[in-house]
Amino acid sequence: MSDPLVIVFDVNETLSDMAPLGEAFAQVGAPRGLARLWFATLLRDGFALTASGDKQPFATIAAGALRTLLGAEGIAGDLDTAVERVMAAMQNLSLHPDVPDGVRALAAAGHRLVTLTNGAKANSDKLLVAGGIRDKFELLLSVEDAPAWKPARAAYEYAAAAAGSDPSGMLLVAVHPWDIHGAAKAGLRTAWINRTGARYPSYFRSPDIVIPALTALPPALAA
Amino acid sequence: MSDPLVIVFDVNETLSDMAPLGEAFAQVGAPRGLARLWFATLLRDGFALTASGDKQPFATIAAGALRTLLGAEGIAGDLDTAVERVMAAMQNLSLHPDVPDGVRALAAAGHRLVTLTNGAKANSDKLLVAGGIRDKFELLLSVEDAPAWKPARAAYEYAAAAAGSDPSGMLLVAVHPWDIHGAAKAGLRTAWINRTGARYPSYFRSPDIVIPALTALPPALAA
Repeated sequence: MSDPLVIVFDVNETLSDMAPLGEAFAQVGAPRGLARLWFATLLRDGFALTASGDKQPFATIAAGALRTLLGAEGIAGDLDTAVERVMAAMQNLSLHPDVPDGVRALAAAGHRLVTLTNGAKANSDKLLVAGGIRDKFELLLSVEDAPAWKPARAAYEYAAAAAGSDPSGMLLVAVHPWDIHGAAKAGLRTAWINRTGARYPSYFRSPDIVIPALTALPPALAA
Repeated sequence: MSDPLVIVFDVNETLSDMAPLGEAFAQVGAPRGLARLWFATLLRDGFALTASGDKQPFATIAAGALRTLLGAEGIAGDLDTAVERVMAAMQNLSLHPDVPDGVRALAAAGHRLVTLTNGAKANSDKLLVAGGIRDKFELLLSVEDAPAWKPARAAYEYAAAAAGSDPSGMLLVAVHPWDIHGAAKAGLRTAWINRTGARYPSYFRSPDIVIPALTALPPALAA
């Protein structure tokens, strides 16, 4: 049995299944594929602000990038209404099917579970409550309370301080290679969930653990 | 007549027309629309590295992000060949039609013209030589020689030092709001080329000048 860790979960797309966003775009008259471009765009712009020393709320960037993209598509209906509908869909996602069992097994193994999101704490809470696993998490953290967004080092250091742990006693779990990179640079161990058989970009630091679903993490840690 | 400025041009998409990239994706069996996702993804990942204090060559990020995206598409042919073909298309773009006349008029008005790209200097040179306006530029600069990618402040400070100018005597010209933001934070004046009638994201600093094409900049500066 391994030592107990502070396991830090990314939230958007790591815990939440973003697939329904394609349908939300279709419902406002935009291409389904715009969902992926939107998420890449909002992170690009959020990271640009981070790189220039600034920080704004995730929802501000998400809604602003959405307005720019939907405006350029020339959708038929009212733009404000379309932005609100897609934002509502983003705030009402569900957990990936592998998450509840994985989280329960990690908690049962004695690990301390926390979240660290670039988004809003309130959305993490809503997602976990709806999925019936809120009680397994000791802390829900957000860069709302940190000096900078992930993957800046200060975001992970904030999480370490909030959890009262040294980074070396923490494991970041994420689907996003940029998050793995930032966490590794900050001294955390890392686990990359690769649900889709994706290639890991060579320009980011490699994860310590690669798993196809969260349910594979407890045995990987116990091994 | 306004005082002469050091006019700093972004290169990718500001000077070069990226529209042919859609055709390059189609030729390797991928959706044309993947071109936009690729460019957003490579900037997202380059900015993530910047935010975490790292820097890698643009071509490394571009090719790596392309490999991940094309691999996920499950294209029919050889992945290495497909990556090479799209990268070759990226390195053989042409100037937007409004650029040569705009550049010549700005040079004729006595401004000093330089470029500052997150990409390779060699590609800026190739693009401007092929477009017949290389001789109008005093310096071709790249973050290859700076501490960080744009929009980090250090990139603009590098350009100011290289041009021997104070940031307040410089004007950044770009199509990308994130570049306008970073330059404005570093103390440069800014001009946003909006060729497509796009909405400017409210979370970035506003440009000082908005023009629909580069040919509109000389009269705007003389006014």
